[in-house]
Amino acid sequence: MIGSVKRPVVSCVLPEFDFTESTGLGKKSSSVKLPVNFGAFGSGGGEVKLGFLAPIKATEGSKTSSFQVNGKVDNFRHLQPSDCNSNSDSSLNNCNGFPGKKILQTTTVGNSTNILWHKCAVEKSERQEPLQQRGCVIWITGLSGSGKSTLACALSRGLHAKGKLTYILDGDNVRHGLNSDLSFKAEDRAENIRRIGEVAKLFADAGVICIASLISPYRKPPDACRSLLPEGDFIEVFMDVPLKVCEARDPKGLYKLARAGKIKGFTGIDDPYEPPLKSEIVLHQKLGMCDSPCDLADIVISYLEENGYLKA
Amino acid sequence: MIGSVKRPVVSCVLPEFDFTESTGLGKKSSSVKLPVNFGAFGSGGGEVKLGFLAPIKATEGSKTSSFQVNGKVDNFRHLQPSDCNSNSDSSLNNCNGFPGKKILQTTTVGNSTNILWHKCAVEKSERQEPLQQRGCVIWITGLSGSGKSTLACALSRGLHAKGKLTYILDGDNVRHGLNSDLSFKAEDRAENIRRIGEVAKLFADAGVICIASLISPYRKPPDACRSLLPEGDFIEVFMDVPLKVCEARDPKGLYKLARAGKIKGFTGIDDPYEPPLKSEIVLHQKLGMCDSPCDLADIVISYLEENGYLKA
Repeated sequence: MIGSVKRPVVSCVLPEFDFTESTGLGKKSSSVKLPVNFGAFGSGGGEVKLGFLAPIKATEGSKTSSFQVNGKVDNFRHLQPSDCNSNSDSSLNNCNGFPGKKILQTTTVGNSTNILWHKCAVEKSERQEPLQQRGCVIWITGLSGSGKSTLACALSRGLHAKGKLTYILDGDNVRHGLNSDLSFKAEDRAENIRRIGEVAKLFADAGVICIASLISPYRKPPDACRSLLPEGDFIEVFMDVPLKVCEARDPKGLYKLARAGKIKGFTGIDDPYEPPLKSEIVLHQKLGMCDSPCDLADIVISYLEENGYLKA
Repeated sequence: MIGSVKRPVVSCVLPEFDFTESTGLGKKSSSVKLPVNFGAFGSGGGEVKLGFLAPIKATEGSKTSSFQVNGKVDNFRHLQPSDCNSNSDSSLNNCNGFPGKKILQTTTVGNSTNILWHKCAVEKSERQEPLQQRGCVIWITGLSGSGKSTLACALSRGLHAKGKLTYILDGDNVRHGLNSDLSFKAEDRAENIRRIGEVAKLFADAGVICIASLISPYRKPPDACRSLLPEGDFIEVFMDVPLKVCEARDPKGLYKLARAGKIKGFTGIDDPYEPPLKSEIVLHQKLGMCDSPCDLADIVISYLEENGYLKA
């Protein structure tokens, strides 16, 4: 009995593929929109449009490929090779060559040569709809000890209580993984921020409210991250806490080490901090006075609500 | 009138913070669990436990800080400085120094010195619950032209139709942004895969079903990515398509360029492809025979359903 196992019916709708550069993501490049043959699965010559809605059902006796799950060949999973392609000329068995096909235009970005932008079948707006939120980046900046991570946590908790999906990219945490190859020298700090900006962009595109929490001492890199995102999707929150307050808190004991010369290039001590100029939200705190993390998170949440980020 | 604007009431529950290394994320390090003073916001000596549930309300006349929104000082947003901290000894105005406090233990990971793992207040399981899915990585590997990106799109579409949140990390797409500084030489290829693995890990931790689609020609780097994730959260799908088939398809015209010597180090031509040995799913395709993308996606979706990834 081949294919007799009860299987779910999956409808699969793929729009016409546009293998050109997305406008919202990625850098400018020289690729142009071309008719495509649906990558490896298209067939026949000329332009192939994809806009199919083909339910897949388990039936007996059709077998065009085999597959393994966890190393064992599975003889109960062979499906009818439904032609998902709406092009009536297509032939499933003619997939090893496309007469008259056009070659997809690859590009060069930075050091990456011959790459092609693959536009995804599911758009950001479609991911946002069930989440009832707008994917964006909340970029929390400020001196060490200004309360960035604390605000990030309170904000994440407050938004979760409202049923919103957030994810924190904490500068220190990302240095445990993705950025563990980077030191604190100037070029590595810039690269640290560039990578976090790029990852935050991906999270925002996924529909997630991404909370990035890092010192970002120079103005230029966060501004570069802002420019990666569609207008309005980058919300900078500046923890405007005087150095004196941060140094008095010194939760990690790093200011003490920096003052003793045991850490070099420490922001605020022997490395500059350029306060951001374009922040959407500035949270001032003065010596001897501070709000609770919840109060501060509430300010940011109100901003998000008032500006339509908490609905799709 | 200060604080008279109608504002939403936000409840904010923060559990006790554990600033030690998370077991599920990050590399091993030498940090130990310490009682903490809630980073910058704790106060008083000794251990401060956080488990508060404090509604924040707009009231008049309380002002401990000011803040700006889009460059304008907002005089209507000052909140009562609710003490979110359950420690009755805490004093909000005593936040510039913690007598008797313990210093949080920082660590070194790779080139990153003096960093601290900040555990987030919202856990992966909490993010997964409303999504009704298990955050994981579906790692699609195979030769250029084997249909990785096409499967990724069909899979993303199929899962979206089931109300699931996915995000595609396409090897080529990530080279437009995060990895645009990397070339195709051996060490850069390894770094490309390492970074995608680290980012995929973050997406899985966010609760997203992350679909990574890249050639990953050598066995070692994907195995390293697998080891980053909790057991079962890395699902490798091998597009087992003969080189002859991929070369006949050649959707980007790259095989032709490689055969002509115009691209050096091209996987399958003058650079090896090591077929993975541990793949959870192997999709075989033979010359002259191929399934539709929907059929292939359906196989993967069935695997996810049968193994509990499509519920929380």
